[in-house]
Amino acid sequence: MLKVGILGGGQLGRMLLQAAANYQVETHVLESDDECPAAHLCRHFVKGNIRDYDTVYAFGKNLDAVTIEIENVNIDALEQLEKEGVKIYPKPSVLRIIKNKSLQKQYYLDEGIPTAEFAIIGSKTDIASHEHLLPAVQKLSEGGYDGRGVHMVDTLNEAENGFTEHSVLERKVKVRKEIAVIVAVGQDGKTALYPPVEMVFNKDLNLLDYQICPADISQKVLWKTEAIALKLVRGFAAPGLFAVELFVDGNEEVLVNETAPRVHNSGHHTIEGHFSSQFDMLWRIILGHPLGNTKPIMSSVMVNIIGAEGHSGPVRYEGINDILRIDNAFVHLYGKHDTKPGRKMGHVTILSTEKQDLVHNANKVRQTISVIS
Amino acid sequence: MLKVGILGGGQLGRMLLQAAANYQVETHVLESDDECPAAHLCRHFVKGNIRDYDTVYAFGKNLDAVTIEIENVNIDALEQLEKEGVKIYPKPSVLRIIKNKSLQKQYYLDEGIPTAEFAIIGSKTDIASHEHLLPAVQKLSEGGYDGRGVHMVDTLNEAENGFTEHSVLERKVKVRKEIAVIVAVGQDGKTALYPPVEMVFNKDLNLLDYQICPADISQKVLWKTEAIALKLVRGFAAPGLFAVELFVDGNEEVLVNETAPRVHNSGHHTIEGHFSSQFDMLWRIILGHPLGNTKPIMSSVMVNIIGAEGHSGPVRYEGINDILRIDNAFVHLYGKHDTKPGRKMGHVTILSTEKQDLVHNANKVRQTISVIS
Repeated sequence: MLKVGILGGGQLGRMLLQAAANYQVETHVLESDDECPAAHLCRHFVKGNIRDYDTVYAFGKNLDAVTIEIENVNIDALEQLEKEGVKIYPKPSVLRIIKNKSLQKQYYLDEGIPTAEFAIIGSKTDIASHEHLLPAVQKLSEGGYDGRGVHMVDTLNEAENGFTEHSVLERKVKVRKEIAVIVAVGQDGKTALYPPVEMVFNKDLNLLDYQICPADISQKVLWKTEAIALKLVRGFAAPGLFAVELFVDGNEEVLVNETAPRVHNSGHHTIEGHFSSQFDMLWRIILGHPLGNTKPIMSSVMVNIIGAEGHSGPVRYEGINDILRIDNAFVHLYGKHDTKPGRKMGHVTILSTEKQDLVHNANKVRQTISVIS
Repeated sequence: MLKVGILGGGQLGRMLLQAAANYQVETHVLESDDECPAAHLCRHFVKGNIRDYDTVYAFGKNLDAVTIEIENVNIDALEQLEKEGVKIYPKPSVLRIIKNKSLQKQYYLDEGIPTAEFAIIGSKTDIASHEHLLPAVQKLSEGGYDGRGVHMVDTLNEAENGFTEHSVLERKVKVRKEIAVIVAVGQDGKTALYPPVEMVFNKDLNLLDYQICPADISQKVLWKTEAIALKLVRGFAAPGLFAVELFVDGNEEVLVNETAPRVHNSGHHTIEGHFSSQFDMLWRIILGHPLGNTKPIMSSVMVNIIGAEGHSGPVRYEGINDILRIDNAFVHLYGKHDTKPGRKMGHVTILSTEKQDLVHNANKVRQTISVIS
């Protein structure tokens, strides 16, 4: 039986373990918090820091393969493991490109992947010499995560509050839609794409409101998106699962925003909405099975369940039963003991053949569920 | 967070744990084999005998609820736990009726549930006084399982090789079809039925060949089946999930064969074939959530993956990739280390809108997969 390790024990790890149980695979998890969402489903749980070389190396050296649920891991250890014959998904060389926003942008440029115009800068003091890019966004090359490490530079005045570290300065795109597409690349190089999803944001809070599948885009934009996503992952020439986030602008141009080389929040709906979920798909890739069916069973909407403002501590959920009374509503709670404002505690996926139903029910979910302490 | 225990750690327990991870529930498993299929997904695994009073009582006394994946457990301990406020699914009083084939048959008689004519006998020596029931089947009241504990008595000559223990002597039914229906009963008494499935047997080997959903039965037989199954579970007046196995004879009469008060092999296809699986459904019942949607996504066929004759020892699977290349074929391997002849090692579910495809692919699966050592 193949032994496969996962670096990180959050909800993505948890859902990977759920899907793994269909196959002949022994799963191991490395994570510093032994109350993490994945620990509960894991017999071979190792408590330890996924950013520490020795810890990651020791975890991986008796395994057949290692995958990740977060980019911020010790890549040096993964490279050493790869040299010693452990298969790593994604390949460490790919992870190194993606983990660093400057290298990632440079990769897009080198490969001819459309992306917002940018400059690589050493510090905020370099912004002035790239004034033509403003209004722009300064993004830390390393260490940014979930909205942190991003600074808006609409005019040169705002440059002085920017980061002093190595960054990407990226021209702001007039975004009409944000979409994402998940691409699977098998060990034999075969690929499979899920239909693009569309992210609908709450502009006041700058939070994902809900995500709908399939995205409401023209055939032309769909073709561009698929072509770009395929070109992007083929450039890596390595198996794995990739989530590509893209912007569509007012001229129907499609630009890559960023890529995650792993299972992703934008693929949660695939659990119930598609014949093969993103989690199932990654196991098929790792185990050398044929790729799964990415077709949708129905259209779907996905809403994250987020910790309410003003509440920190042991979590209580209100309204779960009201959600489960909605036709084909599926709740996923990640088993986190404590809530805090903005923390991802779970998600809800709803299937329907009617887009209007989906939007209506997405709003109902947001109004009905409360995550309090 | 509710703490719920499962007695038994086989494949049903494993699939229960997979489904549990969607909800806010802490799962515990009791099983004497710590290499069992469920152990791998279980942080709170207790090694112990599910038939031992003290072991079951100690396991359950700090839990909020206990459920089972097999009937052969210590019911006395469950009754004591129930008295102390632990919720038991199914209720011990119901389990006591079902676990004993004589009590189960008597229950059908008392409730007016159609079932094959029978007599309750103390030993094979009583068969002669019930000659009018022949050809018949002698079934042990207690301890029979998976084909064991059953003896055919076509003529009085065969009585002498029968069992000397307390038994049911049941008139043989001229079976045209064997079907099964899973019924969910919520804590509020609400019920939901899955569509009946049809079991197709290999007559030479007396083994389930495949199981198809929905069963190919007339509207009249469907109505009867649903009415009988509902009456049967309502008589228990207790929440839980029940698998009712029935015979349809040549006159379209429907007779109950037996009932299992738990998730069941005849519901495996519900994982991919239905919006809410039997495993999801049981958690909804235990956690007091609304019942799930029992409608099929598509028609489906389920084939058990069985250890090949002549092979015992560490398992090897051949043909898995060929199966996974079939459209909408889903493989479940239970993670058992060793195979032996006839052992259930996994199952395959295939979805299709065409019944002919299902039958064709079920045969393909049986010809393609081999489970060897």
